[in-house]
Amino acid sequence: MQQLVTELLQGNRRAAARLISQIENDDPQKTDLLKEIYPHTGRAYVIGITGAPGSGKSSLVDCLLQQMRSDGLTVGVIAVDPTSPFSGGAILGDRIRMQDHALDPGVFIRSMGTRGSLGGLSRATGETIQVLDAYGKNLVLVETVGVGQSEIDIVKAADTTLVVLTPAGGDSVQTIKAGIMEIADIFVINKCDLPGSDRTAAEVNMMIDMKNGESWRPPVISTNAVSNIGIDQLWAALLEHRGYMEKSGRLLETRRQRVRRELTEQVEYLVKKRIWDRVKEKIEFNDMVEKIVQHQQDPYSTAHELLEKIKFYNGIVGEDG
Amino acid sequence: MQQLVTELLQGNRRAAARLISQIENDDPQKTDLLKEIYPHTGRAYVIGITGAPGSGKSSLVDCLLQQMRSDGLTVGVIAVDPTSPFSGGAILGDRIRMQDHALDPGVFIRSMGTRGSLGGLSRATGETIQVLDAYGKNLVLVETVGVGQSEIDIVKAADTTLVVLTPAGGDSVQTIKAGIMEIADIFVINKCDLPGSDRTAAEVNMMIDMKNGESWRPPVISTNAVSNIGIDQLWAALLEHRGYMEKSGRLLETRRQRVRRELTEQVEYLVKKRIWDRVKEKIEFNDMVEKIVQHQQDPYSTAHELLEKIKFYNGIVGEDG
Repeated sequence: MQQLVTELLQGNRRAAARLISQIENDDPQKTDLLKEIYPHTGRAYVIGITGAPGSGKSSLVDCLLQQMRSDGLTVGVIAVDPTSPFSGGAILGDRIRMQDHALDPGVFIRSMGTRGSLGGLSRATGETIQVLDAYGKNLVLVETVGVGQSEIDIVKAADTTLVVLTPAGGDSVQTIKAGIMEIADIFVINKCDLPGSDRTAAEVNMMIDMKNGESWRPPVISTNAVSNIGIDQLWAALLEHRGYMEKSGRLLETRRQRVRRELTEQVEYLVKKRIWDRVKEKIEFNDMVEKIVQHQQDPYSTAHELLEKIKFYNGIVGEDG
Repeated sequence: MQQLVTELLQGNRRAAARLISQIENDDPQKTDLLKEIYPHTGRAYVIGITGAPGSGKSSLVDCLLQQMRSDGLTVGVIAVDPTSPFSGGAILGDRIRMQDHALDPGVFIRSMGTRGSLGGLSRATGETIQVLDAYGKNLVLVETVGVGQSEIDIVKAADTTLVVLTPAGGDSVQTIKAGIMEIADIFVINKCDLPGSDRTAAEVNMMIDMKNGESWRPPVISTNAVSNIGIDQLWAALLEHRGYMEKSGRLLETRRQRVRRELTEQVEYLVKKRIWDRVKEKIEFNDMVEKIVQHQQDPYSTAHELLEKIKFYNGIVGEDG
């Protein structure tokens, strides 16, 4: 185990891949590994990229990768698909486009899908960011499909978040829900060759003017990843936002919030694990379920009964409860 | 409280609305209310409807409502938007289209958005279904925006699930992720007047043939909600699936799975609530966060330390640990 961590810190690719697999598989050693690497994290800058399926996020990531690499930066990419059960080795269709970078030692790409993990996808993503950070990558890109709540949770791990839209015949702005407005540091109107692009950009700008009261006003950048249009401007905007985050103290605040969430998640993970391990040992869960199905008991009283049986309340109430 | 439950069981609309608000607000009385109504649930048939924004779900629900009402069935509609922070009184834009039904006592419509609730949206949706069930509605429609993990979780509460797609220039099938294939009992190709509709239907049929090995093969129904095309066929397919569910014993199995999930969620809800209430009383959570931000401690050891301080382990380990 110590060996694996040492190799990771030396920049060994296979060690990084193996550690991420352990995270995904909820390996019992995982927590000890994460403890070991924690002191070596906090250096990578994390960029989140989200947008609806078909908005061209992968091509955009491809263009950004080229830009970042030509600036001499090393990059880890985590492509998260909360609707896919595939992880790791199983490659998403559009990951294939990234194969140009497969032989570049300065780039590490990993797909993640939903696993039955107790901790959930946002937790696994956060832990993978830490591995890539300790591995020595200067930047970590987290790409998520879709704009639902689970994607928003995932993107909360980012220092800078791009929201990718397309000019889609009036539908585009409709899909910018309140949650998305709040997380976007930069809006990208991709596929800007499509009709309606200028109008979409104008509408997004209008929404920003209406809602944004922060010291950072999200810029709206038009790009066409396929023909490499607007990538320079997007990269400049990313660097500008990073500068703003660092100088204003917002980066520290963002990371403090992230630690709050991570500590909360870790506590709940430990608690759930312990509770369900204990239930497995001590409780006839299926019998309880059957009684509720037959409407002989209600789920609310049964949940209490279950917790009493595993003596949950005894401990938590403590000496003074 | 008893009064409110009695009124609900008598079919009082205001009682239903008030109970749902208490669920959303995580009212302390909520659990007692749900316990009271539980024996009166299990009669409503639950239909889930999911699909990307702009796929015309609301118009489709509108058409189905008319069909159901003309068959003499009473209907509750829960319109869930996991990307919106608005609930209850705050009406989504497209809810306005449903106002035809606002004066019909046989229809009850409610919008739900994300709340900071510990229990989460899928839990609140499940509880609202129970209220509408006890209220006496024959059918409950749960409509969700989007096709992410949170939507899948919500739709798991349904006995029959419709997945709504549109013929969108080749993009449509790309968005049918594995999770969606698994939850769809009926596929709807809405806006079937748009070009590419037949091809989309053919592609979906092909995917079903490739992946489906169940005794129920999801039919693919083309509709155009705006001009009321295909609604008869969709309604017939819904009735057919309901018949299949009831006769095959799948309905009982589905509801057993649902109870398993609900009991699990209820246990975790109680546990989290107790843990964080206890942390608030006993722990300097912010100090812990600060130490992690400064990299003086790691989140994993800190989570353990927190749980030890609130004596979580004492109880759960019990006499033999």
